[in-house]
Amino acid sequence: MPSQQAIYLVSAPDQPGLVARLAGFFYSAGLNIVDAGNHTDPLAEGGPRFFMRLVVDLGGLSAPPAVAALGGSATRSALEARFAELCESLSARSSVRYSDQIPRVAILVTRDPACLYDLVLRQRAGDLPCEIPLILSNHPTLEGVAKSFEIPFYCLPVTPDTKPAQEKQLLDLCARHHVDLVVLARYMQILSEDFLSAAPPVINIHHGFLPAFQGARPYHQAHARGVKLVGATAHYATRDLDQGPIIEQDVARVDHTMGPDEMARLGRDVERVVLSRAVQAHLERRVIIEGRRTVVL
Amino acid sequence: MPSQQAIYLVSAPDQPGLVARLAGFFYSAGLNIVDAGNHTDPLAEGGPRFFMRLVVDLGGLSAPPAVAALGGSATRSALEARFAELCESLSARSSVRYSDQIPRVAILVTRDPACLYDLVLRQRAGDLPCEIPLILSNHPTLEGVAKSFEIPFYCLPVTPDTKPAQEKQLLDLCARHHVDLVVLARYMQILSEDFLSAAPPVINIHHGFLPAFQGARPYHQAHARGVKLVGATAHYATRDLDQGPIIEQDVARVDHTMGPDEMARLGRDVERVVLSRAVQAHLERRVIIEGRRTVVL
Amino acid sequence: MPSQQAIYLVSAPDQPGLVARLAGFFYSAGLNIVDAGNHTDPLAEGGPRFFMRLVVDLGGLSAPPAVAALGGSATRSALEARFAELCESLSARSSVRYSDQIPRVAILVTRDPACLYDLVLRQRAGDLPCEIPLILSNHPTLEGVAKSFEIPFYCLPVTPDTKPAQEKQLLDLCARHHVDLVVLARYMQILSEDFLSAAPPVINIHHGFLPAFQGARPYHQAHARGVKLVGATAHYATRDLDQGPIIEQDVARVDHTMGPDEMARLGRDVERVVLSRAVQAHLERRVIIEGRRTVVL
Amino acid sequence: MPSQQAIYLVSAPDQPGLVARLAGFFYSAGLNIVDAGNHTDPLAEGGPRFFMRLVVDLGGLSAPPAVAALGGSATRSALEARFAELCESLSARSSVRYSDQIPRVAILVTRDPACLYDLVLRQRAGDLPCEIPLILSNHPTLEGVAKSFEIPFYCLPVTPDTKPAQEKQLLDLCARHHVDLVVLARYMQILSEDFLSAAPPVINIHHGFLPAFQGARPYHQAHARGVKLVGATAHYATRDLDQGPIIEQDVARVDHTMGPDEMARLGRDVERVVLSRAVQAHLERRVIIEGRRTVVL
Repeated sequence: MPSQQAIYLVSAPDQPGLVARLAGFFYSAGLNIVDAGNHTDPLAEGGPRFFMRLVVDLGGLSAPPAVAALGGSATRSALEARFAELCESLSARSSVRYSDQIPRVAILVTRDPACLYDLVLRQRAGDLPCEIPLILSNHPTLEGVAKSFEIPFYCLPVTPDTKPAQEKQLLDLCARHHVDLVVLARYMQILSEDFLSAAPPVINIHHGFLPAFQGARPYHQAHARGVKLVGATAHYATRDLDQGPIIEQDVARVDHTMGPDEMARLGRDVERVVLSRAVQAHLERRVIIEGRRTVVL
Repeated sequence: MPSQQAIYLVSAPDQPGLVARLAGFFYSAGLNIVDAGNHTDPLAEGGPRFFMRLVVDLGGLSAPPAVAALGGSATRSALEARFAELCESLSARSSVRYSDQIPRVAILVTRDPACLYDLVLRQRAGDLPCEIPLILSNHPTLEGVAKSFEIPFYCLPVTPDTKPAQEKQLLDLCARHHVDLVVLARYMQILSEDFLSAAPPVINIHHGFLPAFQGARPYHQAHARGVKLVGATAHYATRDLDQGPIIEQDVARVDHTMGPDEMARLGRDVERVVLSRAVQAHLERRVIIEGRRTVVL
Repeated sequence: MPSQQAIYLVSAPDQPGLVARLAGFFYSAGLNIVDAGNHTDPLAEGGPRFFMRLVVDLGGLSAPPAVAALGGSATRSALEARFAELCESLSARSSVRYSDQIPRVAILVTRDPACLYDLVLRQRAGDLPCEIPLILSNHPTLEGVAKSFEIPFYCLPVTPDTKPAQEKQLLDLCARHHVDLVVLARYMQILSEDFLSAAPPVINIHHGFLPAFQGARPYHQAHARGVKLVGATAHYATRDLDQGPIIEQDVARVDHTMGPDEMARLGRDVERVVLSRAVQAHLERRVIIEGRRTVVL
Repeated sequence: MPSQQAIYLVSAPDQPGLVARLAGFFYSAGLNIVDAGNHTDPLAEGGPRFFMRLVVDLGGLSAPPAVAALGGSATRSALEARFAELCESLSARSSVRYSDQIPRVAILVTRDPACLYDLVLRQRAGDLPCEIPLILSNHPTLEGVAKSFEIPFYCLPVTPDTKPAQEKQLLDLCARHHVDLVVLARYMQILSEDFLSAAPPVINIHHGFLPAFQGARPYHQAHARGVKLVGATAHYATRDLDQGPIIEQDVARVDHTMGPDEMARLGRDVERVVLSRAVQAHLERRVIIEGRRTVVL
């Protein structure tokens, strides 16, 4: 049986010896670092900032070196307590997740199945390390898709009047299913600030163009303007609509022979790939949010 | 000696028989169509609209069929007159240019040599069918580059006060050198409406992002926002700054390890390729402007 | 009710007046060309060759001009007979298909569901103009997927000994379901020359790299060689394995951090997109095979 | 004045504590790591292998911690000696280069100026951290280009008979100009094994396709086969022609409208970008060669 792993994400003001002290912490405890990546942003707000991701093999946790280093109690919580001390001395922020904690993802949809299929198929193929305990929607359209994958489906219609109550239901379902991440897979509703502040992290997919088109029917506007590219942006949802930290972006070429429908179809292809890549990066614990931007390690 | 060609661009309200009547016109005159492309936009403003590009071999212009079809005077102007009659009957707009009329391009620059080099090297390699009789600048920086290619260089510094006079000089130089196209290859000045209405067509290169960043130091803004793509758009310059019909766009991927300078460097790579592709499409007579968009045939 | 359309594909030795005569044929019959594209390949084997695709609105087929032009019998077969005469006079090869003839596609699979899902989802979304009357496999793995889309699934296991009999069954099933196109969506068997000569057109997807890797476990070979791109090629299957006319190709970037499994995963993403694009081009009647190459109009 | 940096490349059999011990070495000497990247390849020949790149600020080299750690002699050579001891204890291979050692690059060309211009312009723009002390060619064609950048140009024609002598001259010129890297920027000669074993590292650019075409006129072959992509590969030159470790690859789309000349033109665009990216990665000391592959950190 392969041993468990811990994945650490650390962010700290840049200072000498950060890699050595973080790596040395695990080395002196006899724990092997199986993957590591770091980056220093010299232009971060508030001064140069250091980011690091460490994947640590916990196989040695019950061996003598770890027991000695952790003061006789070689448990995850003892390790966490000691690592917290180190981080405090570095003014670092950190988080940790263990490989036996499989993230639980709620997918919110409306009518369009493309992103939903892409996410579920990648999860089933083993590419997205998560469970999908439920699919939520404001429309019944995609119930059959959920059923074909044997995933519980909840249809919660919404009107302006019922929105607060419906969002309360969404939150309750997420809580009851211990959801760690909410993915808006073409969920055609704007979530309230109240929802976002109470919910787990939320990843959204947003189509986009150069130049940008706001308001209704963006593909018709883009066609009228003759753009040569359609794009999509996956970002964390924040109260500033479509302004949250960007995780992933991509584009596809279009030309004058394509009407708005074909542009929308190509746009959907980009959307689902971009959304799946962003969800994968989040689930693999590669994303650190820093202010309005992300570092994807 | 290969015979000369005529390149026609036609735009007309869609109607039955357009391809047959346009192609038939040349066929009945014994002139061979060596290349043709057409497109119908069902969503054009004012109703479905037809666009066609025809490349016609003029080798048969002095042969009996052409002489007969054109009423005894098989000249370019006779051909133009007859074709104008056909276009009038179709409510079509059209233009024609001949392969022995080499377009003359003025390149406007400031300090950045990347786009200038790219354009001149492609022209020298035979990829851009044009002559470059002069390079214009508001700074002396690139005089050496112009000199190394033996292209006349005019430095016309500009201040807010001298702008009208300087633009007048630019127009005079373009007129004196019989310029057919002005290319803004990172010319860091906004051209006035007066200039644009008096000048030949003007192609500009504009960097761009998703989301878009206006104002100063866009690469610093893009870095602060954590975008994953940098892009560029080549468009005809119109009085609505950066809003003219788009000819070509492209992007390159960036990531969190790149500072604003590296993003700017990658952006420059995109800019020069996009600008050169747009200029090439224009010079090959592939671009029809229709309202705020282009059809690139 | 929108009227039916006929889609013509024509290939002929290049000669003056081809566009005019082909377009004129329909114009004089009062039939409107709603879309057309043509291309001349000056380097074709056997001399310059002309290719054209015409989409013709059949709405006028029962109107007086068509009746007159077709000699009193304005039927599809009368139109076909007259068009055949024209083609003969031009030494042209041609084919026609009508928009009310929905192509019927058999999908052959083994164990990998990615391409199968992509094809079926695009067909259900209306992007692939076809019916999918059956899915054929040499393994039972994907029966559930077929079932979730309510498509009949036939499992025909194969061994070297039973191969001729199994291929006979495949052909019988294709014939019984009136299949127009066979798509090998990661069908992990080599089809015999006998099968290919008796079957409808067959499109295959092949992964590929620069440099190319033959034999077993190509992703392991590609990893060992440190390639930076993985690719895929969709082509018509011919008796020269993987040497048939190419319809579509694409690549994705990989880097040294990816093991063979991740390269294979990214490769699968490329494969399914390339295969779907190729099938779509074929179904929209955009592909003309000319010797060892295709022209995609 | 910014302090100097040392860039280390390390490769070692994977073992616990590698990051900690390598980073700890510099930390304990009071030297700050300003950038670091590492990667473990679990599938390397000979067992899992660890790769790391460290950029170390040498500003602290004369401060007490370094003096103490290095035994009283805080010089580069003392640092090198101690680091060599560490590497020996880890069975690691390593190399170091200092930021005040500007690599010197010889560019070899024949007639095609595209790659040459791209390299020189990027070097002049500050994107390639190197000097270019000479350009070597077997043809006089590009002498004017070298002159316009004021770079010495040596024309050394070559025939089968004079090849050994000419290669000897090339080597002598490289030695006399203290060349660290040879770049074959479309140098249309095959270098002998003798040359390659005596020369500094050599980077070559190779065009390529899927499927691959060997022998003469590859673009004509690719056109005849109807490929949809043209590509290029930059690799270290080894005695197995075109089989050396790959540094960078990319492709561009082509279609049936392009003849061999246009495909070659697009191919040239890919070639120069791929070559420049590979040279940049080498000059920034990001490339570790490991057997037949590279790790680009």
